[in-house]
Amino acid sequence: MACPFQHGSVPATRMPLAAAIAVTTSSGAASESAGTSTSDAASSGERQPVYYGDYLRLGTLLSLQQPESTHGGTRKAAHDEHLFIVIHQVYELWFKQILHELESIREIFSTDHIKERDMLTIVNRLGRVVEIEKIMVDQINILETMTALDFMEFRDYLVPASGFQSSQFRVLETLLGLRPENRTRYSQETYWNAFSDDDAGKLREAEGKRSFLELMERWLERTPGLHPDEFDFWSKYKAAVNDILAANRAQVDHAELTPETRQAVLAECDKNELSFQSVFDPAKHAELREKGERRLSHKAMQGAIMIFLYRDEPRFHLPFKMLNLLMDVDAFFSKWRYQHVMMVHRMIGNKLGTGGSSGYQYLRSTISDKYRIFIDLFNISTYLIPRSKTPPLSESMARKLNVFME
Amino acid sequence: MACPFQHGSVPATRMPLAAAIAVTTSSGAASESAGTSTSDAASSGERQPVYYGDYLRLGTLLSLQQPESTHGGTRKAAHDEHLFIVIHQVYELWFKQILHELESIREIFSTDHIKERDMLTIVNRLGRVVEIEKIMVDQINILETMTALDFMEFRDYLVPASGFQSSQFRVLETLLGLRPENRTRYSQETYWNAFSDDDAGKLREAEGKRSFLELMERWLERTPGLHPDEFDFWSKYKAAVNDILAANRAQVDHAELTPETRQAVLAECDKNELSFQSVFDPAKHAELREKGERRLSHKAMQGAIMIFLYRDEPRFHLPFKMLNLLMDVDAFFSKWRYQHVMMVHRMIGNKLGTGGSSGYQYLRSTISDKYRIFIDLFNISTYLIPRSKTPPLSESMARKLNVFME
Amino acid sequence: MACPFQHGSVPATRMPLAAAIAVTTSSGAASESAGTSTSDAASSGERQPVYYGDYLRLGTLLSLQQPESTHGGTRKAAHDEHLFIVIHQVYELWFKQILHELESIREIFSTDHIKERDMLTIVNRLGRVVEIEKIMVDQINILETMTALDFMEFRDYLVPASGFQSSQFRVLETLLGLRPENRTRYSQETYWNAFSDDDAGKLREAEGKRSFLELMERWLERTPGLHPDEFDFWSKYKAAVNDILAANRAQVDHAELTPETRQAVLAECDKNELSFQSVFDPAKHAELREKGERRLSHKAMQGAIMIFLYRDEPRFHLPFKMLNLLMDVDAFFSKWRYQHVMMVHRMIGNKLGTGGSSGYQYLRSTISDKYRIFIDLFNISTYLIPRSKTPPLSESMARKLNVFME
Amino acid sequence: MACPFQHGSVPATRMPLAAAIAVTTSSGAASESAGTSTSDAASSGERQPVYYGDYLRLGTLLSLQQPESTHGGTRKAAHDEHLFIVIHQVYELWFKQILHELESIREIFSTDHIKERDMLTIVNRLGRVVEIEKIMVDQINILETMTALDFMEFRDYLVPASGFQSSQFRVLETLLGLRPENRTRYSQETYWNAFSDDDAGKLREAEGKRSFLELMERWLERTPGLHPDEFDFWSKYKAAVNDILAANRAQVDHAELTPETRQAVLAECDKNELSFQSVFDPAKHAELREKGERRLSHKAMQGAIMIFLYRDEPRFHLPFKMLNLLMDVDAFFSKWRYQHVMMVHRMIGNKLGTGGSSGYQYLRSTISDKYRIFIDLFNISTYLIPRSKTPPLSESMARKLNVFME
Repeated sequence: MACPFQHGSVPATRMPLAAAIAVTTSSGAASESAGTSTSDAASSGERQPVYYGDYLRLGTLLSLQQPESTHGGTRKAAHDEHLFIVIHQVYELWFKQILHELESIREIFSTDHIKERDMLTIVNRLGRVVEIEKIMVDQINILETMTALDFMEFRDYLVPASGFQSSQFRVLETLLGLRPENRTRYSQETYWNAFSDDDAGKLREAEGKRSFLELMERWLERTPGLHPDEFDFWSKYKAAVNDILAANRAQVDHAELTPETRQAVLAECDKNELSFQSVFDPAKHAELREKGERRLSHKAMQGAIMIFLYRDEPRFHLPFKMLNLLMDVDAFFSKWRYQHVMMVHRMIGNKLGTGGSSGYQYLRSTISDKYRIFIDLFNISTYLIPRSKTPPLSESMARKLNVFME
Repeated sequence: MACPFQHGSVPATRMPLAAAIAVTTSSGAASESAGTSTSDAASSGERQPVYYGDYLRLGTLLSLQQPESTHGGTRKAAHDEHLFIVIHQVYELWFKQILHELESIREIFSTDHIKERDMLTIVNRLGRVVEIEKIMVDQINILETMTALDFMEFRDYLVPASGFQSSQFRVLETLLGLRPENRTRYSQETYWNAFSDDDAGKLREAEGKRSFLELMERWLERTPGLHPDEFDFWSKYKAAVNDILAANRAQVDHAELTPETRQAVLAECDKNELSFQSVFDPAKHAELREKGERRLSHKAMQGAIMIFLYRDEPRFHLPFKMLNLLMDVDAFFSKWRYQHVMMVHRMIGNKLGTGGSSGYQYLRSTISDKYRIFIDLFNISTYLIPRSKTPPLSESMARKLNVFME
Repeated sequence: MACPFQHGSVPATRMPLAAAIAVTTSSGAASESAGTSTSDAASSGERQPVYYGDYLRLGTLLSLQQPESTHGGTRKAAHDEHLFIVIHQVYELWFKQILHELESIREIFSTDHIKERDMLTIVNRLGRVVEIEKIMVDQINILETMTALDFMEFRDYLVPASGFQSSQFRVLETLLGLRPENRTRYSQETYWNAFSDDDAGKLREAEGKRSFLELMERWLERTPGLHPDEFDFWSKYKAAVNDILAANRAQVDHAELTPETRQAVLAECDKNELSFQSVFDPAKHAELREKGERRLSHKAMQGAIMIFLYRDEPRFHLPFKMLNLLMDVDAFFSKWRYQHVMMVHRMIGNKLGTGGSSGYQYLRSTISDKYRIFIDLFNISTYLIPRSKTPPLSESMARKLNVFME
Repeated sequence: MACPFQHGSVPATRMPLAAAIAVTTSSGAASESAGTSTSDAASSGERQPVYYGDYLRLGTLLSLQQPESTHGGTRKAAHDEHLFIVIHQVYELWFKQILHELESIREIFSTDHIKERDMLTIVNRLGRVVEIEKIMVDQINILETMTALDFMEFRDYLVPASGFQSSQFRVLETLLGLRPENRTRYSQETYWNAFSDDDAGKLREAEGKRSFLELMERWLERTPGLHPDEFDFWSKYKAAVNDILAANRAQVDHAELTPETRQAVLAECDKNELSFQSVFDPAKHAELREKGERRLSHKAMQGAIMIFLYRDEPRFHLPFKMLNLLMDVDAFFSKWRYQHVMMVHRMIGNKLGTGGSSGYQYLRSTISDKYRIFIDLFNISTYLIPRSKTPPLSESMARKLNVFME
């Protein structure tokens, strides 16, 4: 038994003192006393000592690299296939970790009232997801040490396996909010045929769940200050913008300009006003949403604009941070896809991928904005107005954004 | 004149419409109307159009790379000296940016009451400093493309210039809190002789200012909840720890152990208790501080421990984040120093540096813990206790940590 | 005077011993004796001692950050404009460094016979360019710490300056081989109007030079082994491919297949053969080149395929390495453009950029394959054949690829 | 059956055409015809179609994350333990990949004559190891998203497991050349007790093998040009250095100097000469080797110096590159250790690690130069002389370094 509070005080032997006690104690004293342990973790009396290799299941883990190019064990494997397997396994481990984080966030996010401390948890876990994505991007460099000719040594053995078939990655995209209709698919049938029944089941299950995009939408719609009886942000915002637009027109009217210049400037003013109309007018918004150019509800857009404008208020710190992290999550997946495309292009030229998924051209198609989940958030910047023109908070609204009563 | 609200709407000509107006307007109308501009920035009527190259002073900037190996212009410069100059200039630009951020933070930090929104500013700017430091670390890879033999082609020309003489970097270290007595110095005289009068002046000025370490200390001492009349955190914390330590002893007493095991476990308990005494006992703390092993005041240590334990409370979110960022700032400077050492070792072996500053051995000495500013924060982890044993907040304290009234 | 061989042995004072000698020596002895100095660099007798800050021109360098948002000095500058200036200056310094490397490579590359040791120089310098590009990509993260609202505080002041106007970057693209017709241009006139006369002059000068793409093409055409009287690689390669294609057909003919499967497999064989025809048939190649889908001459393509297939031969090590580095150079510029687009999208939404260069949409267009210079090299992988089918080298060819007689 | 040459041409279904043939073919025709397949890989007739998830053993791989904090399944696991497991498993996968590369290099390296193309293989694989190490360093950032308090939630459950017990990492260090006596060990007994019998066996086996350091030493001793009957590099090098040293003295003798300056300069000359004596005099070298300050034999040092000085000669390109990569391998392990230390310090303060391996202090000790394997190569820079003073190659030596006859 270690002096329990001293985390990890046991000498580096495979038989910790804790276990030594368990062995020497005939009564249940040790395990009982564990109940008084000072840490949340312990109760070490009953536990077997933990060995690093056992804990990580290294015996099994390190036996899962089975190259196909051994031709059923009759030949020496192509040297580089080991790397190919390992890096894909590493990716799958990271996918699992990301899913672990996202699932825990979805759980919190699914409640109607998210406490401040839970918001902190969300922000911290999204931050972790982003760090993982950075590594996912960077480790493509490792695979790039394999040349096209080296890949050719074992490529045919993998037919028709394809990274396209990573069900974890597809579940992940789906949970974030990638809609089936935005995927590049050749035909419904072909798509589903690519997966094992088990994997297809997981995909369909994920498609049935509320995505992050939907949960975020519902949460944005609840942004404090939106309700007309409350602060009525939207009316105030529209008024502020309209003042700005009118002032612009007035400025142009009073300026001495050549006719061409006046025409050019006024054309810009028109374009500018039209852009704001698309967010003011619910019908126009609905139309854009129909076309897939916007994804969030009109109300959610209002919430997002409000958070962006008043992000300095204490209660909007974490919400603003969270929206930014969601953009990061999106951006890094895009970057990963892009770097992946470049690598694949170099590795297989414009040939088909191992799964026949059309390789370079297919992957190129996934870099389009269709694959970006939170694109509305990126576009919010279009609707920001300067701090000096932002409607001042009412006293009660200011108070509200300064208090957390949970 | 651009339709002013449409940020950046002017076509890509060198003569913006804004300027066109200024030109065509004989009256002062344009500049007046600028007063109604919709952005904080504008008033474009009076302004000259901005050209990228002029804005960045590229004409001058790109003329500042003057190799010494031209031997006064009589020879072709050593090819790699250009890189050597450029990368050092880039470092100095980043140092300037870091100083810009740190100075703005010091200003906020120097007030007695830091508002929540100012705390957010601090956190954002420290986050930026950390991003800059990451690049500082990574760009050492660029310099590593120069080999020892290539460096030899121009190294002698630089005598006795040395990175040691970067006054910005030294000011930066000083502002963070590196104390003169912790620097590796051969002699006072030699140290100051290494700098120009101008640079020495800047260093002395920085040494006269309150450092980040000192400002943070004062701020930590004000942590809400420390005052005995308030929540009296310290008494509660000591009681909680003592309970844990006593439970440990009891557990050992009641366990059936061989005499050797008992002795070993009790020795650990002793060590553990001693460790806590060093933070409980003001005299012991003072002693460690005298020796330079602790830097913060006893009260500030209490504040830091409190923030670490209750970091989930809304009002401690940003303070906890800030303390972590300060650790990051510290850690990345350490990493930078370390990678720099490795690079220098490869480049010049164990020879002296160009400034005679003893090269590898000198740099090696700066990786010691003496150069770490916020080491107390790293050590805080030693004194954390599990969430389940942490003293619960009183109702009034809980309320206090949930409200921001500024 | 330092013991000259001891590079950098002088103590860290501003007055090096070398200078001390120069001072105490009335005769020319010191400067004379410098002639016997042991390093390529020295002759230190005449030189003034070098001070770090003077060498790097820090006085000037650190005075070039002049924010526009001071409104002619009447207001406090927007805090974040300093970062905006510094990071762009850093980019311009790196662009200058890349140009320095590329120019030196062009010089070597312009000769008709490139010696092995020069090839090594090229490879090392390209490697450096790639390291710089990595940092260029990564440091976008620093700029991303600025939010849209922060940018808005000074954005209007910069109108119509735009990163579009970086003449160094445009010269760089041009020198690599980006053709004017592949650029996204609104109109010729608008394009040239965007630059100062001086910058436009530099661009036109660069457009008049032989690009890397052209120099590489000429060099690839000289690949040893291409000449029909020599190894006649192309005939042998075509024969090898044709054997493979015929064997494929034969295999299909003899297999028992359902009619549908047979049809599908044969369709693939057709497609495959067609793909090879595009590289076998000079007319088809010319057609693709006309359309801009290929950029290299037919002869140069042959050279590239040959180098890829026999890259294990000593004399092809560095050429293969160089071709890979050129792909890296290309790929990292693409990555940089892509990350830049993502950042701009977040910063300004889908609004216009400061230079009116249409911001997001314009930048999006530069990620297309039109902006990739060495895309033919990426596509080479399509035409590789396995090592076991590669035509064996003749004895004289093998010898040739194992000897470097310069 | 796919049209075999068209790598990966099969549509993305789970039943590749290749398998379709195997199914429809009653005779052995398909598998026979596979013999004529155009790729090294194929012979697809007999093979089962490969499914991504099966190939990577995802079913098993993704079931190996078994947290201890479930307390035998009776509680919900601590959220962050999943990350802790995943990142360690990822590290172990990368260790396995590095061992895969290193073992393949050792095999080549163990022969008496290494062909140029094999040298290329070595260089490419070492390059890959370095890329893996970079990711190993960077992914520490992911673990840093876990705070000390989060770690505390499951830390006690892991006692006494410790990263110290990663047998793969220890084998790796040993294979590179870390000697048992350079390890920080408390006692022999304790050290070996930390490992399972199986792991201890692997360690002892690795200790019995020729390390990279030894293999490199033997290879360096064979550097062409060292033999006295051949180019006799060492005599020529010593003569060149002595000329330089004598010229230095002469320069000092003839300069007019104050007595103090003369004394200082002469002291430097003395030091400089002493430094060279340590490499000229076999006895001094042996003495330093005895003390552990040098690791390579005298002959091997000569080879390394020769390669560094004549690295521009074709035949030394790859050897020089390889020596640099070995330094990279070493440097990145050092960086990894350093970043790991910083992270651990933040996570557990100066407490003991979970394995009782003394945590921070132990890890701090592994950053010392004792853990650097190829430190002699870093120190080579001390003994380089400028290109202009390097002994010219004889004609026969020049020829030798320009030819590869295998």
